[in-house]
Amino acid sequence: MRVGVLTGGGDCPGLNAVIRGIVRKGVQEYGFEFTGYRDGWRGPLEGDVVPLDIPAVRGILPRGGTILGSSRTNPLKVEGGVERVRRTLAEQDVDALIVIGGEDTLGVAATLHDEHGVKVVGVPKTIDNDLDATDYTFGFDTAVNIATEAIDRLHTTAESHMRVLVVEVMGRHAGWIALHSGLAGGANVILIPEQRFDLDQVCAWVESRFKIRYAPIVVVAEGAMPKDGDMVLKDGTLDSFGHVRLSGIGEWLANQIEKRTGKEARTTVLGHVQRGGTPSAFDRWLATRFGLHAIEAVRDGDFGKMVSLRGTDVVRVPIADATARIKTVDPRLYEEVGVFFG
Amino acid sequence: MRVGVLTGGGDCPGLNAVIRGIVRKGVQEYGFEFTGYRDGWRGPLEGDVVPLDIPAVRGILPRGGTILGSSRTNPLKVEGGVERVRRTLAEQDVDALIVIGGEDTLGVAATLHDEHGVKVVGVPKTIDNDLDATDYTFGFDTAVNIATEAIDRLHTTAESHMRVLVVEVMGRHAGWIALHSGLAGGANVILIPEQRFDLDQVCAWVESRFKIRYAPIVVVAEGAMPKDGDMVLKDGTLDSFGHVRLSGIGEWLANQIEKRTGKEARTTVLGHVQRGGTPSAFDRWLATRFGLHAIEAVRDGDFGKMVSLRGTDVVRVPIADATARIKTVDPRLYEEVGVFFG
Amino acid sequence: MRVGVLTGGGDCPGLNAVIRGIVRKGVQEYGFEFTGYRDGWRGPLEGDVVPLDIPAVRGILPRGGTILGSSRTNPLKVEGGVERVRRTLAEQDVDALIVIGGEDTLGVAATLHDEHGVKVVGVPKTIDNDLDATDYTFGFDTAVNIATEAIDRLHTTAESHMRVLVVEVMGRHAGWIALHSGLAGGANVILIPEQRFDLDQVCAWVESRFKIRYAPIVVVAEGAMPKDGDMVLKDGTLDSFGHVRLSGIGEWLANQIEKRTGKEARTTVLGHVQRGGTPSAFDRWLATRFGLHAIEAVRDGDFGKMVSLRGTDVVRVPIADATARIKTVDPRLYEEVGVFFG
Amino acid sequence: MRVGVLTGGGDCPGLNAVIRGIVRKGVQEYGFEFTGYRDGWRGPLEGDVVPLDIPAVRGILPRGGTILGSSRTNPLKVEGGVERVRRTLAEQDVDALIVIGGEDTLGVAATLHDEHGVKVVGVPKTIDNDLDATDYTFGFDTAVNIATEAIDRLHTTAESHMRVLVVEVMGRHAGWIALHSGLAGGANVILIPEQRFDLDQVCAWVESRFKIRYAPIVVVAEGAMPKDGDMVLKDGTLDSFGHVRLSGIGEWLANQIEKRTGKEARTTVLGHVQRGGTPSAFDRWLATRFGLHAIEAVRDGDFGKMVSLRGTDVVRVPIADATARIKTVDPRLYEEVGVFFG
Repeated sequence: MRVGVLTGGGDCPGLNAVIRGIVRKGVQEYGFEFTGYRDGWRGPLEGDVVPLDIPAVRGILPRGGTILGSSRTNPLKVEGGVERVRRTLAEQDVDALIVIGGEDTLGVAATLHDEHGVKVVGVPKTIDNDLDATDYTFGFDTAVNIATEAIDRLHTTAESHMRVLVVEVMGRHAGWIALHSGLAGGANVILIPEQRFDLDQVCAWVESRFKIRYAPIVVVAEGAMPKDGDMVLKDGTLDSFGHVRLSGIGEWLANQIEKRTGKEARTTVLGHVQRGGTPSAFDRWLATRFGLHAIEAVRDGDFGKMVSLRGTDVVRVPIADATARIKTVDPRLYEEVGVFFG
Repeated sequence: MRVGVLTGGGDCPGLNAVIRGIVRKGVQEYGFEFTGYRDGWRGPLEGDVVPLDIPAVRGILPRGGTILGSSRTNPLKVEGGVERVRRTLAEQDVDALIVIGGEDTLGVAATLHDEHGVKVVGVPKTIDNDLDATDYTFGFDTAVNIATEAIDRLHTTAESHMRVLVVEVMGRHAGWIALHSGLAGGANVILIPEQRFDLDQVCAWVESRFKIRYAPIVVVAEGAMPKDGDMVLKDGTLDSFGHVRLSGIGEWLANQIEKRTGKEARTTVLGHVQRGGTPSAFDRWLATRFGLHAIEAVRDGDFGKMVSLRGTDVVRVPIADATARIKTVDPRLYEEVGVFFG
Repeated sequence: MRVGVLTGGGDCPGLNAVIRGIVRKGVQEYGFEFTGYRDGWRGPLEGDVVPLDIPAVRGILPRGGTILGSSRTNPLKVEGGVERVRRTLAEQDVDALIVIGGEDTLGVAATLHDEHGVKVVGVPKTIDNDLDATDYTFGFDTAVNIATEAIDRLHTTAESHMRVLVVEVMGRHAGWIALHSGLAGGANVILIPEQRFDLDQVCAWVESRFKIRYAPIVVVAEGAMPKDGDMVLKDGTLDSFGHVRLSGIGEWLANQIEKRTGKEARTTVLGHVQRGGTPSAFDRWLATRFGLHAIEAVRDGDFGKMVSLRGTDVVRVPIADATARIKTVDPRLYEEVGVFFG
Repeated sequence: MRVGVLTGGGDCPGLNAVIRGIVRKGVQEYGFEFTGYRDGWRGPLEGDVVPLDIPAVRGILPRGGTILGSSRTNPLKVEGGVERVRRTLAEQDVDALIVIGGEDTLGVAATLHDEHGVKVVGVPKTIDNDLDATDYTFGFDTAVNIATEAIDRLHTTAESHMRVLVVEVMGRHAGWIALHSGLAGGANVILIPEQRFDLDQVCAWVESRFKIRYAPIVVVAEGAMPKDGDMVLKDGTLDSFGHVRLSGIGEWLANQIEKRTGKEARTTVLGHVQRGGTPSAFDRWLATRFGLHAIEAVRDGDFGKMVSLRGTDVVRVPIADATARIKTVDPRLYEEVGVFFG
């Protein structure tokens, strides 16, 4: 049996651990052979392959990124894309495909399986932890640790100077990284995309902090927005960037807080630092087990499924379940954490 | 309402986060007052208290250890101990007690509640992750990260020199730290207390590693034992220590491997480094939520219960459930991980 | 003898280690007493003091920030400021003053000593390492380690995706942090304030990197400027911030590289994360020794001097020497490092 | 021109950074070609080579260990060894040799140059920082950081429990790692090989610590010895190990302290963890610059020399200067640090 493997979408610590788990178990226990596809769906689309055997996966466990490369190429949006993918698999004698990716990449996998009979097994991947149908995705714990360490360091300044410290973290549609790192780092304000924030409330929290001789730390997800969303645009800062995505809301918020409270504010934008580098032990454990279970699903012929974490067990769910809707922060959880604001 | 809080047993990153969660929510949302008891059960036994209010918990979130101190004092083993604890609580107007601890400490709490009507809520704590009735305990993730980083560093030597590297990690009765850090660190052999190891097999794994020009890394839980357990004693190394507990099995194993394979072996004994220092983000998250839910249980009058992690939810279970039996590594999980041995 | 201590300017890992060194040696070996002044020069100006004895310095060694607080208050710019400082010292029986700070804070110390006979000893402090007359300042090594770790993490993305990664680090007038972290992190381009950069050259380096299938990492000091400095303003991005200081040049540069090369660029702005948190071992060593030698200088009555690192020795130099001119990156050193560009 | 490169002795973070610096500058600026020799002097002795060009050094900067491998083979102790080395160099058209190593490895280099006319340039390497003629060696800063982090973590336990914590660090003949990490970590006792310790004094320091409700942390270099050295042997613990080298003095000391003070003691033995893994930013900077200057010395034809750090400058000194004597801790420096004992 020959199994193809590809990784799609943004990079995420743990991708290599998944690949290693798949190959080690596949070769040693099942006698499978592997074909690595380069740069996500571009690989099978163009027949671009990477050798994938035991020596190829040696030493990759602690390394971030993916030895297979990644891209956002979508064969469903390419003329004759599905047919080209099927032809590549057939020509290269690839019997089944393990697809490691997020919503988009897995969406393609679901379509290829459900509508075109391609034998796929999915492995969920998103730094943002916003995929439904799994308790956690690998990479998330690493991102939260990195953001938490950054917040830890800012407390130093917060205890010695009269400054507002704004940290912008990843999370365009879901606030998991902000919520977890903000709680773990002891932030005084946490703003997430799921709930539009009230700038007056934010400033009130900031002011209350100064009263006990400490500077406030504000953690804001990149996708967070004020209640009056128009003000971001009217303010004229964001849209002059060209890139709203990165240095947007954090810098805007720092400016607003300065204007309203009269206190100096400083911004940290962690950016891609959050999604790179060596995975945490938890992510290596999770990613490795996802790999082991994915190849087991292939061996079982259980296609159209995705591996998923439930408590401490790895189970299988239909790929479609995971991509149907995004997993956002439950308002009750956000409220629970709110006891630490201000 | 006045609530007492104590921490018992070995220290564990996250204890302070629990305390902070309890006090912040208890004061701010419920208007409770708190009494901190010093050094575990010694506190209520001797009436030794620590002030516990909002200022007292400021800045403690990222700090390991416990601001309340800890000890292994057991009031059940002290003449009139139970009565003295009850008297202290009564005299100090303490209505309920939150007990943060492991098997022993919680066992006392269960007895006080079940047999003496003391209003207790438990919070499970063990670095070893071997408490039943909760998916994870806080402190474990931190310990695994520390051990994994140590193993990561040893790979360097393993790739440049012809040496066997033995790492002894915590785990007297359960091999969770060894299993998780060994897998996450890419160890070539993982030995746990749950399964006696075969020294010939260990040496065979070690030898096979040298054939691909890499030195092997062996992770051994402090409680692991060879199949012929007598050999450890006969060998005469262990019992001359006085302390079997710490530098025991790792050094013994390194000696045995040297003798049998003729390769130099080096030992690392991490010891208390694994249970100290700042908690990981995961442990801060878990410990904080445990604290928030414990005080909620007090507010609800739901005594005799312990907070527990189930998937991503914090639930309540009878304290007795957690202390009834130790949670050991499932043989199937150990076998799953075995694909990476050798 | 009673000695006053103050810390001025921006915070910097190691300040507490200096204070601890001063107090431990001063009390234990010389029998001195201490007065801590709060928030830099504001302390003696307003007579705002903090208790400073052995218990006060317990446990502060690994903590960033300063237990004395800091500010940028300058008594030379305050009506009757010098007189008020002298009066405070006299009234509080403070015989000598140890001043820990950067160019501005030490400049005040030099003036107070040279022109007003105040007995001061200086300890140099700058995260930027740009003080002349000392090989290194504490805090710098920590900042470089933090920036290097961030760059390390970005390599992951750089190896898996086709993106340009721009990292903005501290350094308004001197490029030491950029140079050291850029070299240590294996950056492909390093831009420093000392040498205006050529945008075409930067883009050429970026392009050459893509040819070997790796994304380029560009490290830019916050004070770096293009050869045609006007373009930054004409481009209209910087001046719309209100804050040029933080998210300025990095985001601008990323935009320019995107426009010119057609490749996506992402920005990381580390900000105050670089100057907070626990000091590196080197900085704790250096800061502690600075503290020990500063109090020794007070004991010797050697005022108007500043402690300074020369090789592995701590020596004393006139404070004025350190504040006369900024220490910038030697063009030959920048050229030496240039072998790694592109 | 063709240049050979080899790395000898124990591994040390920064070796790969030296190699990368040599090759990048040698190829790009001077047009040199390189031959890598495998496993130290074994390489030229047996003609065992590794390809060494720009692609070979890509990505190795942050990696510990050495891509060339290492060993303790000494051609001076091999029948006809010198002649075989010379023949290999001649046959492979290797004009000059860069030798990266410690006392032994560089000693061979000095002999080959001084007595046999081989064109060698040396790069000093020792984790222990005990090579004379250079302010610091790379790898040392990394080791000190690792040991310091371990001590930091132990403080947690020290603040919560009544235990003595003993940390054994590297340093067989010189106490630099113990001294720097012990100071940086805030240890209460530091024991180094240069000064035999008095067990009564150690116990007195330990006892005094308990009086202020903190547990003491004792850092001991592996080569430290009590004043009555015989007691270690008489005690019968050490010599029963077979390996005095690793778990020796730390465990022995913990036992003695337990017996004499009646307090529980726990031991951490860091072992090879100290010499592995990614180098600190300082070590990457130093190692890279050593590499750049070593190849420059080759270009200048300045053989028989070794690169060396003096303040912030890299200079050249005769290899023999570095190997003539070991650099031990100055008693005055040890005394300076002694203010923190107890």
